[in-house]
Amino acid sequence: MRIDIITVLPGIIEGALHTSILKRAQEKGLVEFGLHNLRDYTLDKHKRVDDYPFGGEAGMVMQIEPIDRVISYLKSQRDYDEVIFTTPDGEQFTQSAANELSLKENIIILCGHYKGVDYRVREHLVTREISIGDFVLTGGELVAAMIADAVVRVIPGAIGDEQSALSDSFQDGLLAPPVYTRPAEYKGWKVPDVLLSGHERKIEEWRYEQAVERTRRLRPDLLR
Amino acid sequence: MRIDIITVLPGIIEGALHTSILKRAQEKGLVEFGLHNLRDYTLDKHKRVDDYPFGGEAGMVMQIEPIDRVISYLKSQRDYDEVIFTTPDGEQFTQSAANELSLKENIIILCGHYKGVDYRVREHLVTREISIGDFVLTGGELVAAMIADAVVRVIPGAIGDEQSALSDSFQDGLLAPPVYTRPAEYKGWKVPDVLLSGHERKIEEWRYEQAVERTRRLRPDLLR
Repeated sequence: MRIDIITVLPGIIEGALHTSILKRAQEKGLVEFGLHNLRDYTLDKHKRVDDYPFGGEAGMVMQIEPIDRVISYLKSQRDYDEVIFTTPDGEQFTQSAANELSLKENIIILCGHYKGVDYRVREHLVTREISIGDFVLTGGELVAAMIADAVVRVIPGAIGDEQSALSDSFQDGLLAPPVYTRPAEYKGWKVPDVLLSGHERKIEEWRYEQAVERTRRLRPDLLR
Repeated sequence: MRIDIITVLPGIIEGALHTSILKRAQEKGLVEFGLHNLRDYTLDKHKRVDDYPFGGEAGMVMQIEPIDRVISYLKSQRDYDEVIFTTPDGEQFTQSAANELSLKENIIILCGHYKGVDYRVREHLVTREISIGDFVLTGGELVAAMIADAVVRVIPGAIGDEQSALSDSFQDGLLAPPVYTRPAEYKGWKVPDVLLSGHERKIEEWRYEQAVERTRRLRPDLLR
């Protein structure tokens, strides 16, 4: 798949796109990223992409014109399944949205910044609005990187067995059970005996019980 | 305040910590960041910080020893209010958690990675577990950057009027109303007349109505 990200601050996410799983997924040809600096698409000689809001509110607003120009340019290159805008009042991002987006061919993610984006962008150019949660960030760059990470890691082949997406929290509707590694005892803190027993069936049972118990205690909403 | 971040992949977040608002907040002396590569704290000659899980599950687990060592080192330098671990089964991060954390003096954020962290770290070394939502990421680095961003931008003086945190979504329990900027008409798409009227009271009323209407339609749970 291909993910194009439109931003005023590419420096925030460049590192994330070129490290670890996302880097390897690109090397394996599983995903291609395009990172587009919105300022390259403005006709303004000072490279401004924002302006004061109509009606005299505080804050600056991202203009529709450069955004329309970069999206039009991208659409002239290929078809896109979604043009996603990151905003705190969008649909809540979840694992099932990540799974679903991983099946798309080409998506654009437009990162909000400043006070917001001219609302006409949201009405006419964007196909989907995604929020990462009930809090406000300086911009949508970290959200875009997060969506890219969550989506790419479920593409078959993107992560090795060492990451083991299938036994992650949420994929089976339960929180993951506790994990432990060496040493078996550290400062008097011990690993549960059952995990050292070598008794496969008992270990499986313990894990399932722990997953259910943790889910019931911490996230009863997942069991409803 | 001071935020220390412990990670196996500092490259993912370096850019975010040194761009835009977070960069300026450091320059203004409002926040100080420490970015600590966990591999610098292992005694293993190959700089390994993970190992196979007890009980033979898939995935690698972050070891307690290097984590204990870096946290102990940091605690020898100053007192910490919280040692936060980023994990999908932690408490859901919200704007009020961001507001609250912005009043702390020193916090540590430990970024999870691989299959997870030895559970004894969570039982004995961590004081608070935070989740960004019901989805799984390659690691907690982007979550740590997001927490840092959301927390720092509400420290008084961190953002200028152009960012205007007080009229953001969630700070008043309502979604923000639509914003528009020039041009007043673009490809036949017009800015609502009221915003061009210059009539302050009517504009205020329109904004409030829009905020309530959008909240009722998109996030009725916020009004309960």
